[in-house]
Amino acid sequence: MKIVIVGSGAVATNLAYGITTTTRYQVEIAARNPQKAKDIADGLELKVKVVAINKCDKNADLYIIAVTDKAIEEVYKELLKRISPEAPIVHTSGSTSVDVFGENARMVGVLYPLQTFSRNRIIDLREIPFYLEAEDEHLKRTLIKLVEELEANWDWLDSEKRKAIHVAAVFACNFTNFMLACANEILEHEGLNIAELKPLIEETVTKAIESDNPISVQTGPARRSDNRTIFLHEQYLKNRPDLKDLYASISQKIMRKFE
Amino acid sequence: MKIVIVGSGAVATNLAYGITTTTRYQVEIAARNPQKAKDIADGLELKVKVVAINKCDKNADLYIIAVTDKAIEEVYKELLKRISPEAPIVHTSGSTSVDVFGENARMVGVLYPLQTFSRNRIIDLREIPFYLEAEDEHLKRTLIKLVEELEANWDWLDSEKRKAIHVAAVFACNFTNFMLACANEILEHEGLNIAELKPLIEETVTKAIESDNPISVQTGPARRSDNRTIFLHEQYLKNRPDLKDLYASISQKIMRKFE
Repeated sequence: MKIVIVGSGAVATNLAYGITTTTRYQVEIAARNPQKAKDIADGLELKVKVVAINKCDKNADLYIIAVTDKAIEEVYKELLKRISPEAPIVHTSGSTSVDVFGENARMVGVLYPLQTFSRNRIIDLREIPFYLEAEDEHLKRTLIKLVEELEANWDWLDSEKRKAIHVAAVFACNFTNFMLACANEILEHEGLNIAELKPLIEETVTKAIESDNPISVQTGPARRSDNRTIFLHEQYLKNRPDLKDLYASISQKIMRKFE
Repeated sequence: MKIVIVGSGAVATNLAYGITTTTRYQVEIAARNPQKAKDIADGLELKVKVVAINKCDKNADLYIIAVTDKAIEEVYKELLKRISPEAPIVHTSGSTSVDVFGENARMVGVLYPLQTFSRNRIIDLREIPFYLEAEDEHLKRTLIKLVEELEANWDWLDSEKRKAIHVAAVFACNFTNFMLACANEILEHEGLNIAELKPLIEETVTKAIESDNPISVQTGPARRSDNRTIFLHEQYLKNRPDLKDLYASISQKIMRKFE
């Protein structure tokens, strides 16, 4: 099976790495900036060919568009100048509907890896859930074959549910990271660092996931409606209005849950 | 060494369990509700004596008040009816100053275990950082002896810095849990569950801590100022105003960081 991955970002790089190291599929990376893609591929010693999009393999078994959400449509149009409109093609975005490929496209779908990727941090694809969407039977089989070869967990998921997962992931991942960033900002001000909180953070996450229902294990001043402590904490943050606002508004939301 | 732990909540229970299982110290639990404390101690097969506060050992080497913040002062006054004002005594609160014991108290301090405790979930105290505060040399030695016997990590920390750690812990622990609760609420609405996001959450936390500076690894729509995706997500949450507000306000704070 020949796969063309379009993109040179963290998702494209991680997919290329995973596919070339755990399957026998041939991978070609097609990028708007092939030199950048080539540097990354060389750095990771990937066994891939890197080309410009308008030079990509015309007869691949699957095209995976792994670019930022807003570039998907443009990249797709660029691809269509080179390949047949009948070619099997997917994107990897959580919040983009499959409709981005237009109403008449037939062999189109989604291969959404639910993970936060960084370019310089390779993640084992077997640890990641993949959410697939496709109408066409041939494309369905192609996608299943790929994720099975990768030994990844996978499931079918339509565009609406995928959007729910993506919104949930923003809370669970992006916003969680931001909470840790706020904690670190407070600690650094006192010559301390987020590493001090490592056992606490790990226990929090373990407990939340094991509970199957994180709100049932909510703790802290807001959970107890401990207005005295909330007041002391807001006083402590009085010279940092952004942190103080955030502290107040999240505490308020937690209290409302337990009214 | 004889230790009296005052309290029957999660902190008291975890301390009693840790001290009785890893040291040779004698532990007595003194509680406002001794029957409740006794049931918990029996459930955990703790080798402790459980008594009412006004019946506690008068000659212990250390008294640890492990009750909710707002009850510390009252419990302390109750203890003083029974024990000498010269007895070595500490509380376990992150956000309460050592001044809660009054200006004239001499043998007073703080033993703050930085962890989120649940009554029915025993945590290995060796994994937890303890922050200590004391002026008196004898009390200092007593506290060091205890944490060293527990094989715990520990450090001295004054009341002001301990407050910083506690505020940071609210962000890193209580607010993080609430972000996971919001994610779960969104997922459950689609027949899914927080467990789907486990690999994503674990990678997020690992990456944030390893980076030593979580804001440097911030990702997501707000980080990219991807207003299109933010709009779609807010649309998706339009019937759940609390979630939508929270999504909007945290996204805005993240965007401001990268302006």
